[in-house]
Amino acid sequence: MKFLTFKIGDKETYGVKVKREDAAWDLVKVFADFKEGDYPKTLLEALQQNNTVDFQELVRATIEKVEASENKADYKYEFTAIQFLPPVTPTNNVIAIGRNYEEHASELNNEVDQLYVFTKAPSSLIGDGNEIPSHSDVTNALDYEGELGVVIGKYGHKIPKAMALDYVYGYTIINDITARDLQKAHSQAFLSKSLIGGCPMGPYIVTKDELPMPENANIVTKVNNEIRQDGNTKDMVLKIDDLIAEISKYVALHPGDIIATGTPSGVGAGMNPPVYLKRGDEIKVTIDGIGTLMNTVGE
Amino acid sequence: MKFLTFKIGDKETYGVKVKREDAAWDLVKVFADFKEGDYPKTLLEALQQNNTVDFQELVRATIEKVEASENKADYKYEFTAIQFLPPVTPTNNVIAIGRNYEEHASELNNEVDQLYVFTKAPSSLIGDGNEIPSHSDVTNALDYEGELGVVIGKYGHKIPKAMALDYVYGYTIINDITARDLQKAHSQAFLSKSLIGGCPMGPYIVTKDELPMPENANIVTKVNNEIRQDGNTKDMVLKIDDLIAEISKYVALHPGDIIATGTPSGVGAGMNPPVYLKRGDEIKVTIDGIGTLMNTVGE
Repeated sequence: MKFLTFKIGDKETYGVKVKREDAAWDLVKVFADFKEGDYPKTLLEALQQNNTVDFQELVRATIEKVEASENKADYKYEFTAIQFLPPVTPTNNVIAIGRNYEEHASELNNEVDQLYVFTKAPSSLIGDGNEIPSHSDVTNALDYEGELGVVIGKYGHKIPKAMALDYVYGYTIINDITARDLQKAHSQAFLSKSLIGGCPMGPYIVTKDELPMPENANIVTKVNNEIRQDGNTKDMVLKIDDLIAEISKYVALHPGDIIATGTPSGVGAGMNPPVYLKRGDEIKVTIDGIGTLMNTVGE
Repeated sequence: MKFLTFKIGDKETYGVKVKREDAAWDLVKVFADFKEGDYPKTLLEALQQNNTVDFQELVRATIEKVEASENKADYKYEFTAIQFLPPVTPTNNVIAIGRNYEEHASELNNEVDQLYVFTKAPSSLIGDGNEIPSHSDVTNALDYEGELGVVIGKYGHKIPKAMALDYVYGYTIINDITARDLQKAHSQAFLSKSLIGGCPMGPYIVTKDELPMPENANIVTKVNNEIRQDGNTKDMVLKIDDLIAEISKYVALHPGDIIATGTPSGVGAGMNPPVYLKRGDEIKVTIDGIGTLMNTVGE
């Protein structure tokens, strides 16, 4: 299943992609009318409750009832009618990994670090289709980084590597927007990585059953339809299970936490001469089996 | 006023310190019985709604009604009966500042950095009186850092320095527990600063009207009643208004966000030879006008 959070008019809700249609079931509306008792009000709540209720099974069974009803069209919105929001807002910031693809580390003259972990503020999150402000008052070197995002499905601490994939709920796409000049000026990555609009995420969270080979997925970033990054997640230095095991040695992970797994080579800062993002640029990050995350650079 | 979040039995609630008593009014219970209509269910919600409703005035007026009622004792708990929790869980992690006191920077052989900003994961937060696990499986160098915590009261981005203090709701105490060996092993501070129990916060948030001189407050850290840090917030390199203005140039701040303003000299790593925390140690951080945050190191 592909879960999303979105706005329709002034209302914020979440939903699931309709099979073979570019449309979403509004799950808040669906649950209100077709489910007895309480239900998760946000996608984050759904993940938090997933330990006690199988959320996918609940969605499947409830959508079946909607499909059988006469007014099923009232519960469904075309993608063209909605505004995508970040699928979840994690409680532990977005935990991001640097230098996890060798070619990318070397294009920026960095060594591969065995565990280079920083965070991006939730206030930097935006959804698919939304604008990234150019922030020209604080940076002249705004850059993209297309990345696979791992969505944690249950609480864990000191998770053994062999069990790590059990803690994954699904996957998403992250564009780890970075102000390269601020990144150089500060030893800690947080500020340069947390500008408003600096963390596009989405369009969906794809449940892991629909992405059986997350470590062999093409990841392609285009700027104005020109291919800039053409990588594959098989080239990650630390694999998904390594990352979960290593991070959770130190930090407790919660449902809805996101790990952005690092970017392949081809960022603007690695070009000769460097080419940074400018107003009007359109950036698309595509990962096989998940979809495409598109954002433009605004004023 | 001094606001706190606490557990009484299995119930999590929040409250306000009773004047001249070591006790708290249970504000959830108070509002449920003495206020018509909706009310904030957590202290974070109260801060988020503070733009539209003056929370302190609401508390004052409602407590007045409780005080006049016959069964006022039912709404009040002695501190000895409650378990303190972190006053709020910020949505943007705990934003923390390194190297903001010259003597501390030099005791660790660091330069004062004009803006050294990292985050501590909310999953590391604990309240006053709770145990910090020793984490002996991953560190042999657990250390304390007593710090003034600034609590943000309203949304802001690119906040002018002259307006910065208007964005402060109040102050709290933070112990920025750090695993020094992990800090050395990783260029990014996040992991070494985010162990479970690695961010004691509290006991209260003191509203800013009760701490008119936050930049001239003694800050003392004792380990087993021995004074280790004996500083004053007047020695901060970047002042509170600088920090808010500088951070918000890049990162949007939200109500309930916390800025930990850095630690004075006297940490264990700066002693000769270094002395790290061990099981059974009791750490007290006291800031004039706020109170004392006490935690022990557990198994």
